[in-house]
Amino acid sequence: MSDTADLATALRSGDRRALARAITLVESTRDDHREEAESLLGAVLDATGRSIRVGISGPPGSGKSTLIEALGLRVVGQGHRVAVLAVDPSSVRTGGSILGDKTRMVDLGRSDAAFIRPSPTGGSLGGVARRTREAMLCCEAAGFDVVFVETVGVGQSETAVADMVDMFAVVLAPGGGDELQGIKRGIVELADALVINKADGDLAAAAHRAAADYAAALGFVRARSEAWTPTVLECSALENRGVNELWATIESFRASLTAAGEFDIRRQDQARSWMWAELTDTMVDRLRADPDVARRLAEAEQAVIADEILPPVAARAILDA
Amino acid sequence: MSDTADLATALRSGDRRALARAITLVESTRDDHREEAESLLGAVLDATGRSIRVGISGPPGSGKSTLIEALGLRVVGQGHRVAVLAVDPSSVRTGGSILGDKTRMVDLGRSDAAFIRPSPTGGSLGGVARRTREAMLCCEAAGFDVVFVETVGVGQSETAVADMVDMFAVVLAPGGGDELQGIKRGIVELADALVINKADGDLAAAAHRAAADYAAALGFVRARSEAWTPTVLECSALENRGVNELWATIESFRASLTAAGEFDIRRQDQARSWMWAELTDTMVDRLRADPDVARRLAEAEQAVIADEILPPVAARAILDA
Repeated sequence: MSDTADLATALRSGDRRALARAITLVESTRDDHREEAESLLGAVLDATGRSIRVGISGPPGSGKSTLIEALGLRVVGQGHRVAVLAVDPSSVRTGGSILGDKTRMVDLGRSDAAFIRPSPTGGSLGGVARRTREAMLCCEAAGFDVVFVETVGVGQSETAVADMVDMFAVVLAPGGGDELQGIKRGIVELADALVINKADGDLAAAAHRAAADYAAALGFVRARSEAWTPTVLECSALENRGVNELWATIESFRASLTAAGEFDIRRQDQARSWMWAELTDTMVDRLRADPDVARRLAEAEQAVIADEILPPVAARAILDA
Repeated sequence: MSDTADLATALRSGDRRALARAITLVESTRDDHREEAESLLGAVLDATGRSIRVGISGPPGSGKSTLIEALGLRVVGQGHRVAVLAVDPSSVRTGGSILGDKTRMVDLGRSDAAFIRPSPTGGSLGGVARRTREAMLCCEAAGFDVVFVETVGVGQSETAVADMVDMFAVVLAPGGGDELQGIKRGIVELADALVINKADGDLAAAAHRAAADYAAALGFVRARSEAWTPTVLECSALENRGVNELWATIESFRASLTAAGEFDIRRQDQARSWMWAELTDTMVDRLRADPDVARRLAEAEQAVIADEILPPVAARAILDA
């Protein structure tokens, strides 16, 4: 246990190797490691939370990683310490990840004020999300005051990331035809900022039109908070244009929600739902861990779908047994 | 038990008094009644599902009830049997309800082919939703082939109703200034149809503009299904204008989703999530039933919000105890 105390001390001092070790510990599925990880996190909890947490999502081809790197360099230049984490749904089950790879953010990775970590792998999105939340706490304890969490726009991973960050930004790169399909309903639901990327060269005009269209559409929809209207920006990470404005937007978001008293409330709501999600997920996992119950769950689902049994009756039968 | 068998038989024959008794039984919280209710539902389950289920939501003042009555009369005139149920969030806790009151749909209530029932009351939205779902099954077993579920647009009750119907329609009556606030994100998320009501007299022009604005906004957003684009309609229940078009839209929706193979899939997904919701709700209720655990849950929430303990650690502490 004194190892854990030492690690906690090193982490608080901002030691990057300690941070890497702490996150590796947090990601481990071994029971003894889980115990140590929770002990470590408990020891540094009072030093967490002092950051702005920004989720950045976007489809492959949106230039998201290049944008995060440019943004990270801007933020480092302003004197901050930046962590880049990732939730990659493809790393659930397969164990691989294409996000957050240090080799993809070479310039940023060279800076001592930046820390880049690939997505954790795991058996479920819930597990990956938990590890990322805990990695974020480790980064904050180590003094990183800006945390980006990158993800690809695949349904539930966007919601999982939105649940752990203060601000959620979506990056799009129109001109490829996807704007004709319209905005994903998830964007309307979650985005505090929409970044039209690759707004350069031949695509500059298309990007400008897309930005106007999206702004009009989002303008019709009631915002999540009276303190912030979702913003549409045009960026060219290649030409390093729009990146400063994006950082200014993030800072403005924090100022606005803090002034409205909503910043902390959002975090409290997130902490509370994390607890409830863990409660129900753990209860369900314990059910499933019994092969008998797992089998009965699968059979119940089939019977319910086939209208052979009423869902609440099926649920109670499983719990009573 | 032979009472239950008799009631099942009477229900299947379309007897309205049997239907009223069945729904009263389903709404009762007494344990012995719950047992009888589940026995009854099990006995008629094979006769359920043969209807189109439409959720109709809208703020107070949207003219929703008048519209439902006009729609119900149209549908009855087409030879169908119509049930009108309700999920009123204000009936959670208070025991009162302002929706689905027979005295508010006098003409429709006079028809033998229509059955109107107020919202059940209950201690939680989950309880009210379950009772409404089961009441819907009773109506279907009694041969009602069109079921409307009315609700006011209050956050989670809309989602609860959307989870139990095939099609979700939102009724708005612009001209009062609420269109300036934009479309609720819930509408973008859930609505298969948007009805601009009270499109008559002085408000006809405002309604027309609002319909165009909403259609433009919804047009930007990617639909939930490729088989159906959310439709915007103008109605004047007072002038009985647009009501036939609304019914035609509902029929068209069913045809389109059935042709795409999605109609049954939606219902299967709903049955499956009903089972899982009952599982987790029951597990949480059993936790809360123990006053000791209930107290610890409340304390854990406070500690988690205050950053004194990590949420997953708090969750596990509660479950291990």
